[in-house]
Amino acid sequence: MTGPDLVAVLAARGRIAPYIHRTPVMTCRSLDEMAGARIFFKCENLQRTGSFKMRGASNAIFSLSDADAAFGVVTHSSGNHAAAVACAARQRGIPAWVVMPENSSRAKLAAVEGYGGYVTLCVPTLEARESTANKLVAGSGATLIHPYNDDRIVAGQGTAAVELLEEVPDLDVIIAPVSGGGLLSGTAIAAKSMRPKIRVMGAEPKNADDALRSLASGKIEPAAEGKTIADGLRATLCERTFEIIRERVDEIAPVTEEEILQAMRAVWERMKIIIEPSSAVAVAPLLTRRAQAEGLRVGVILSGGNLDLDHLPFGVATL
Amino acid sequence: MTGPDLVAVLAARGRIAPYIHRTPVMTCRSLDEMAGARIFFKCENLQRTGSFKMRGASNAIFSLSDADAAFGVVTHSSGNHAAAVACAARQRGIPAWVVMPENSSRAKLAAVEGYGGYVTLCVPTLEARESTANKLVAGSGATLIHPYNDDRIVAGQGTAAVELLEEVPDLDVIIAPVSGGGLLSGTAIAAKSMRPKIRVMGAEPKNADDALRSLASGKIEPAAEGKTIADGLRATLCERTFEIIRERVDEIAPVTEEEILQAMRAVWERMKIIIEPSSAVAVAPLLTRRAQAEGLRVGVILSGGNLDLDHLPFGVATL
Repeated sequence: MTGPDLVAVLAARGRIAPYIHRTPVMTCRSLDEMAGARIFFKCENLQRTGSFKMRGASNAIFSLSDADAAFGVVTHSSGNHAAAVACAARQRGIPAWVVMPENSSRAKLAAVEGYGGYVTLCVPTLEARESTANKLVAGSGATLIHPYNDDRIVAGQGTAAVELLEEVPDLDVIIAPVSGGGLLSGTAIAAKSMRPKIRVMGAEPKNADDALRSLASGKIEPAAEGKTIADGLRATLCERTFEIIRERVDEIAPVTEEEILQAMRAVWERMKIIIEPSSAVAVAPLLTRRAQAEGLRVGVILSGGNLDLDHLPFGVATL
Repeated sequence: MTGPDLVAVLAARGRIAPYIHRTPVMTCRSLDEMAGARIFFKCENLQRTGSFKMRGASNAIFSLSDADAAFGVVTHSSGNHAAAVACAARQRGIPAWVVMPENSSRAKLAAVEGYGGYVTLCVPTLEARESTANKLVAGSGATLIHPYNDDRIVAGQGTAAVELLEEVPDLDVIIAPVSGGGLLSGTAIAAKSMRPKIRVMGAEPKNADDALRSLASGKIEPAAEGKTIADGLRATLCERTFEIIRERVDEIAPVTEEEILQAMRAVWERMKIIIEPSSAVAVAPLLTRRAQAEGLRVGVILSGGNLDLDHLPFGVATL
């Protein structure tokens, strides 16, 4: 089997425990009724820095030797991974350089700077981000912390599923959103090891359904052209996560933009917690009942809760 | 001393335990830093029906004799108390008639009906609400469940503070919003009994500062003319709650509309939980540091999380 194993996930868990929150598992009768299932929500929106990314980033950064760590870390990201790397690096007491596109929102820049990261702006292309990050690495001796193409990251992300299954051992299904595949890979490794009969599902926007297409064709397909409100889910799988997912994930559920919004709204209204659209992607297959989970016990990883309150998809009469 | 005592609150707690959630106590480093204090948030926004009102309503309804209960209950309210009475009545298996103004929003009517309450519409004046409710009581033999002028309600609302102090016994200050005064009365009774040296603060919008004026003048002052976003806080004290608060509450903090919005936004952004403006009223005196709680351990009752996602105060560039 490709990728880190359960032992690596459990080692990650011990390593990162002092630096992350053990997030709560919440339930909600109203959503259970809508889904016809018993849902256990692992609330990574309540994680430090507001997303599960803190798990992988902490594991990668605290896996470094003291000698390597002293040179600091570099990453390129405009989202939750950037904030997580900055926060985890500060916990370790080392510098973090974060390459961000120059058109990043003020809020995203402020989040990284708020956690003590050094922002390096570049032109907004993937090539510029990678080359700027590589130049920083070459010049500084710092270590590049990739958001998902890294066993330490995958193992760290898997710790959320470990905690969930410890609290609710008898899950029939577990669902996580998929983008670059770090969270879904870690979730699948942990869940299939701890409970081999569990059904592992990924969920992604129909407008960014490269994981579904990749599993169908047997090779990594390019990103879709469509736009999605789930702006955290625009990355594509890498070889590492593709292999892990191909070996261990049972299916990928695509969801429409309207289904994402309805799921997000249902969680806000009924559970009174703030989740970002990417989290709602994993809820939508249950509320539409396309997950075929009626009567089952289902774990859902609510991946994060970061979004711009000045640009909410609510506040208008029609959804 | 006026009102129910700690024994009544503890009796309420046992009585309602099967019907309510024991809500979590949350903390947040970012908000602690803003306030310069250590804050423990009692999350009644995560309570059943989305507010603390479920506590008092359940206590009143489960205090009824079987003979009285069989005739059902009546209340008049357009807000959280209405939903709580409907839900608690359904738990007991008895009918609840809820008198609501005919201009109530569709969402509020749907909430009451969703919990199985029978909505009776009336013209939107306090007189019409009271006379309609009284007619229902006279005609049906049902019991009127007042939102705060009732010892059973006050005792029920005090159970939130009991749970908070059990979990965090060494609080220096406790803050709750004040409107009709049921929550603040119950909080003060519980807190001053369990921890006599604690400082008990009420918080209310400057635009609805009748509690502050009433304590200053020594008699119940009429509602202010101003409008406030904290639409749950427009009621005025009754004799019962006025006396309890006069005897036990140390101060009332008025907060501006902008301070309410900023506190609400801070909780949404940093804690990732949804609170309604009335809850934010109790957070604002800490974030502005006017509560003089620097260096102290402070409990805050987050009273509820119900608000209309189609009319949010965010989504615009300026607050």
